[in-house]
Amino acid sequence: MGVRREETRTLNEKSNLVLIGFMGTGKSSVGRSLARKLDMQLVDTDQEVESATGLTVPEIFRRYGEVRFRSEESLIVKKISRYENCVIATGGGVVLNEENLTELKRNGCLVCLRSRPEIIKSRVQRKPRPLLARDNSLENIQRMLQERERFYEKAELVVETSDDPLEKVVDEIADWFALRRSRQVRVDTDGGAYDIFIGQSLLSSLGTLMVERVKGKRCLLVSNPRVSELYAERVRSSLEKSGFKVTDGLVPDGEEYKSLKSAEQLYDAAVEAGLDRDSAVVALGGGVIGDLAGFIAATYLRGISLVQVPTTLLAQVDSSVGGKVAVNHPQGKNLIGAFHQPRLVVCDTDVLNTLDPREMRSGMAEVIKYGVIWDSGLFEHLERVLQAEPGMSPTDLIPIITRCCEIKADIVGRDEREHGVRTLLNLGHTLGHALEGETGYQVFRHGEAVAVGMAAAGRLAVSTGRWSEPEQDRLLKLLEAAGLPIRTEGIPSGGLMAWMERDKKAQGGRVRWVLPLSVGRAEVVPSLPDELVEPVIREFVR
Amino acid sequence: MGVRREETRTLNEKSNLVLIGFMGTGKSSVGRSLARKLDMQLVDTDQEVESATGLTVPEIFRRYGEVRFRSEESLIVKKISRYENCVIATGGGVVLNEENLTELKRNGCLVCLRSRPEIIKSRVQRKPRPLLARDNSLENIQRMLQERERFYEKAELVVETSDDPLEKVVDEIADWFALRRSRQVRVDTDGGAYDIFIGQSLLSSLGTLMVERVKGKRCLLVSNPRVSELYAERVRSSLEKSGFKVTDGLVPDGEEYKSLKSAEQLYDAAVEAGLDRDSAVVALGGGVIGDLAGFIAATYLRGISLVQVPTTLLAQVDSSVGGKVAVNHPQGKNLIGAFHQPRLVVCDTDVLNTLDPREMRSGMAEVIKYGVIWDSGLFEHLERVLQAEPGMSPTDLIPIITRCCEIKADIVGRDEREHGVRTLLNLGHTLGHALEGETGYQVFRHGEAVAVGMAAAGRLAVSTGRWSEPEQDRLLKLLEAAGLPIRTEGIPSGGLMAWMERDKKAQGGRVRWVLPLSVGRAEVVPSLPDELVEPVIREFVR
Repeated sequence: MGVRREETRTLNEKSNLVLIGFMGTGKSSVGRSLARKLDMQLVDTDQEVESATGLTVPEIFRRYGEVRFRSEESLIVKKISRYENCVIATGGGVVLNEENLTELKRNGCLVCLRSRPEIIKSRVQRKPRPLLARDNSLENIQRMLQERERFYEKAELVVETSDDPLEKVVDEIADWFALRRSRQVRVDTDGGAYDIFIGQSLLSSLGTLMVERVKGKRCLLVSNPRVSELYAERVRSSLEKSGFKVTDGLVPDGEEYKSLKSAEQLYDAAVEAGLDRDSAVVALGGGVIGDLAGFIAATYLRGISLVQVPTTLLAQVDSSVGGKVAVNHPQGKNLIGAFHQPRLVVCDTDVLNTLDPREMRSGMAEVIKYGVIWDSGLFEHLERVLQAEPGMSPTDLIPIITRCCEIKADIVGRDEREHGVRTLLNLGHTLGHALEGETGYQVFRHGEAVAVGMAAAGRLAVSTGRWSEPEQDRLLKLLEAAGLPIRTEGIPSGGLMAWMERDKKAQGGRVRWVLPLSVGRAEVVPSLPDELVEPVIREFVR
Repeated sequence: MGVRREETRTLNEKSNLVLIGFMGTGKSSVGRSLARKLDMQLVDTDQEVESATGLTVPEIFRRYGEVRFRSEESLIVKKISRYENCVIATGGGVVLNEENLTELKRNGCLVCLRSRPEIIKSRVQRKPRPLLARDNSLENIQRMLQERERFYEKAELVVETSDDPLEKVVDEIADWFALRRSRQVRVDTDGGAYDIFIGQSLLSSLGTLMVERVKGKRCLLVSNPRVSELYAERVRSSLEKSGFKVTDGLVPDGEEYKSLKSAEQLYDAAVEAGLDRDSAVVALGGGVIGDLAGFIAATYLRGISLVQVPTTLLAQVDSSVGGKVAVNHPQGKNLIGAFHQPRLVVCDTDVLNTLDPREMRSGMAEVIKYGVIWDSGLFEHLERVLQAEPGMSPTDLIPIITRCCEIKADIVGRDEREHGVRTLLNLGHTLGHALEGETGYQVFRHGEAVAVGMAAAGRLAVSTGRWSEPEQDRLLKLLEAAGLPIRTEGIPSGGLMAWMERDKKAQGGRVRWVLPLSVGRAEVVPSLPDELVEPVIREFVR
């Protein structure tokens, strides 16, 4: 097994969306709707020229001629090209000046609207244009279109606006732009290579992304009623637009439904829906849904495509990436499972807006974990961001989730089956699992238990000379800043010790302590004497 | 996915077992017991010398001296070295002549018996030896032992006979010899590389073979009551001798128990037995047991070691090799499964002695299939062997099973996941599955249905110009010589057509006809028109 490299591409760091195209193709109205939909500022070059000069465009043409107008227009283009997060609707002739295009492309994606000449003719009659003042015949429009064709071709996306309703045109551009702006992390393991997309408004692009990666046209959409009510419609509509036949596989919410029994019901649904070897299972939900749907994908017809659409922070940064899928056995979590890498992971940060704040904090525990074991830069970034303000906006979250996915991709690329470095991901999980198990999975969210577990692992690392007191302080402060518990009470330490012993046996003696060495570095410690562990547990679990 | 090479090693084509060692180490009595146990002829060099010369060994020594004895002994060695299938007990001094050893090793494996000097002294007192006639002191024995040490070291196996009872010594040598004589086929796939051992009396060597391949010491022995009663004791004792803790996982006999329900019971047994990531599942049985146990191994703790000990011809030549594991869904066979390569496959041909003759013939259908799709030499060999006599002895079977395993290893090495050449293994299975399904798996053994399916596929190949009439005749004759059906009746062809259609859908439109091109070559035909298929089906299924 070789060392694989993770790779991240941000398709687009550009923040503006620039509409180009002939007059009468709808740039102003499409621009207005897009700006509203994407919550961006609308800038119209003609209007900017008018307000800078105090004259209307026809007046400038009449008084000073086209050359003067183009010169004013170029000044405006130079200025607005430095704006951020704007939809820029341009005049039809902006493209004639190469320099204008260069400026606009610096921070903007060019989208060209195109209509048939007859449509343009009927539209411009409603609002007269200086350049067609003398001759608005179809022949003249056709001639001008032909001249400008080579400029319009420089757009990244060309959208036909002759027949479709405005809304459809706007949706198409918005979806394309969401995808264009998303970040992409490549995962490369022995079990398969795939991309993770991270960004806003990505649910509507799921169909587009799947079409390129899934051969068949049938899919089973596994979700729970709560998530389904919020997002299934958007996902289904995107999939259907791309030609998929979607069958629902609803599973009640809760860890107790991550069972062979639920798996049986999903197998039935898959057979019923006629899923074949080319079909896919789409997991829309948190860790429970991802693990369960992944187990179905791993075992139905000896393995079909899996697409993960994680809807919790925890699932986005951790469980949806890396191919671990499983259901629970009454005697233990994840006892029945497989390694089955997804074909695609889509993390839409918009869905985190509806996430229960406690669930959000729980996910943050895993984020902090990545900082401790792998990336001091991430850790320091979290210190800055979380200590300033505990809540985070999607734009704060995107780079953080991306970084976590990169780290996970790096780790599972080196060690898909957890024979080595992947074990580091278990920082905080030794005590964490025991806390969850001992309390019947009713008291702690996973990340909360992991937070207490990290605090205790840090203390063990201090007491064994691996980690310094100041570093432990930083860890505890960061966990607290994220609103996470660092200690708990009312749980007898004897029970926890017994639980860890059982866990160790069930995992083939491989449940070892992961201890931090310095911020960004950790190691696996094969075993620690009880007399060292017990007092630390008593310190954090009173 | 690269093309992998299969590789077969016969550790030993040598058919004799030669016992060497100092006088009094037990060569004669061990030789006698071994010959009886292994059903081989016993040859004792001293006795041969005596019967050739008409004198006892002490007489030759007395009358003519040691030199004359050694010369007679060498003549005998030269003669018996050309025998086949003998246990050869040699005189203690045979090794002194280098040429003797060279002769004996030509067709024999050298096993040296060794005892402590005091034991030897006490034993030789019971039966006086010429060489110790003058001085049978411990010192003299020690001196002679030391002189001969370098010759005894040339043995492949050294067995200590001072303390252990005769039976234990004999078992140890017999097990070693069985393994030494076995054939070994290497399988190399993306999902793992492993060896198949094929030979007689291999069950007792299972522990030895597993110890080298399985890290842990716990295993779940999955079997059915019928097979378990016959062979589980032998398997368990071999495993326990090698330090394994064996837990039974009994599943009732029958295809209907290859279910998720049985899987659940086996998961429970695995948890109960404390199986961990280093443990193994051992499948002792036919295809149902192999597939079910394999599914457990593939999914318990995300995959643990699987050891296949197939007890039917069908399982030995087909289902135990290649990593396809599955359970059935009410709507279709093998709908829930995985690819999980075993760590080891042990085919003991002795277990075929207790196989129902109909089951044996069923397995032969798959053997013939390998000849048709891959190896004209195998096909011709089967024509010779089966048309002479339908039954086969284990020694007939070993090279045939070995060849089938080589072919399967070659095919799955090239195409583990059946995206290409592995599909050829489905010759006869398109109609075969339909026949089995349409009759509720109650009428045909798998191989019987495949035999009718091959006959029909051959006819389709003739009618599409792929395969000649004489070749079709040879195929039908060979199937009949193996006691297999080539046609059947009372099953409406409409039902079969519908079944094939359903099968095709369930398999993602990938169930295609495999048609022979010439003996040893076949191809996959994406689809055939119903008007071609129906009359052929009506010809073979009246």
